[in-house]
Amino acid sequence: MARKQGSHSDITGPKVQDTALRLIAQHGYAAVSMRQIAAEVGVQAGALYNYTSDKQSLLFDLMQRHMQDLLDALHKADLQGDALARLETFTRFHIRFHLPRSDQVFVSYMELRNLDPENFAAIEAMRRRYEDALESILRDGEVEGIFHVPDTRVTTMALIAMLTGLSHWYREGGRLAMNTIETIYWDLVRKAVTA
Amino acid sequence: MARKQGSHSDITGPKVQDTALRLIAQHGYAAVSMRQIAAEVGVQAGALYNYTSDKQSLLFDLMQRHMQDLLDALHKADLQGDALARLETFTRFHIRFHLPRSDQVFVSYMELRNLDPENFAAIEAMRRRYEDALESILRDGEVEGIFHVPDTRVTTMALIAMLTGLSHWYREGGRLAMNTIETIYWDLVRKAVTA
Repeated sequence: MARKQGSHSDITGPKVQDTALRLIAQHGYAAVSMRQIAAEVGVQAGALYNYTSDKQSLLFDLMQRHMQDLLDALHKADLQGDALARLETFTRFHIRFHLPRSDQVFVSYMELRNLDPENFAAIEAMRRRYEDALESILRDGEVEGIFHVPDTRVTTMALIAMLTGLSHWYREGGRLAMNTIETIYWDLVRKAVTA
Repeated sequence: MARKQGSHSDITGPKVQDTALRLIAQHGYAAVSMRQIAAEVGVQAGALYNYTSDKQSLLFDLMQRHMQDLLDALHKADLQGDALARLETFTRFHIRFHLPRSDQVFVSYMELRNLDPENFAAIEAMRRRYEDALESILRDGEVEGIFHVPDTRVTTMALIAMLTGLSHWYREGGRLAMNTIETIYWDLVRKAVTA
């Protein structure tokens, strides 16, 4: 019987990415070798090259997949209503998407410096599309007269940093339930732009 | 003439720390060797051990120095007046302190995972002292009736993430002058807690 390359790849491919993500988050890109990733996945070092051309591609694929998942999920979040309603949807979406992905958040920020210039530009463009989605809500809110934001670009960067920062310190089973924290963050965001 | 060990150390010691900071920020702790640091400083690998006992101590010293500088500078910032005035002083202080220290900010966050448990606890305790300074301002503002903050602890973490995030994206010579951006951030902070 011929080897089922397709089904084999379907299992091993994601396993390679998940293993690489975990190892890079733990040790850093420069300290992780392809040999180490292969050993953890349980394949020969040479076999890894069936799934990725090199370590740089692996890092880029990880970060690109994270950003594509984010953009796809935002699209599905279906922002509706006036700017205030859309800002609330965006805020809660951002928290819910990033919180269970602390490894991806960590690697996406930390390893930007290790991307080749071309790969860096591609990731930055995707990140920019996401930031632009928030900025357009802030702009619309100004036009609607419900937001008072001195600079929509700076405010976009400030709010994203505030919301993403949650994944650095939140631990499940802590003092406050997730939805309580989400509501506190929404309160801060709402007041910062409407007052 | 006897070798002037003191003056020699005075120059080389800080150079070791500065070089280690730069290399760790660039490549990550796990990927940087003591040999590499020695080569960049311009001393034999063995001579490095006159200045630090090992790489872990070097990382801890870097992070401890950064936190101590922060706590000392905050003390000198001399927070005065009502809670709103002190919050403004804290906000502007935080931005001005962290912005020229993007390598320290990056390493302090990224390399927490590489600290031995005892060193981690020591750095976390210093970080907590800094966070507590902000939280006590928020608590006082609530007592004074000028702040309306649903949870002073969560708000503290949210505001620090927002302000520190500036050092990830701000580049000198950009569209906006530093003091303009500082004022925009203060506007967001003020509205988030007073509205």
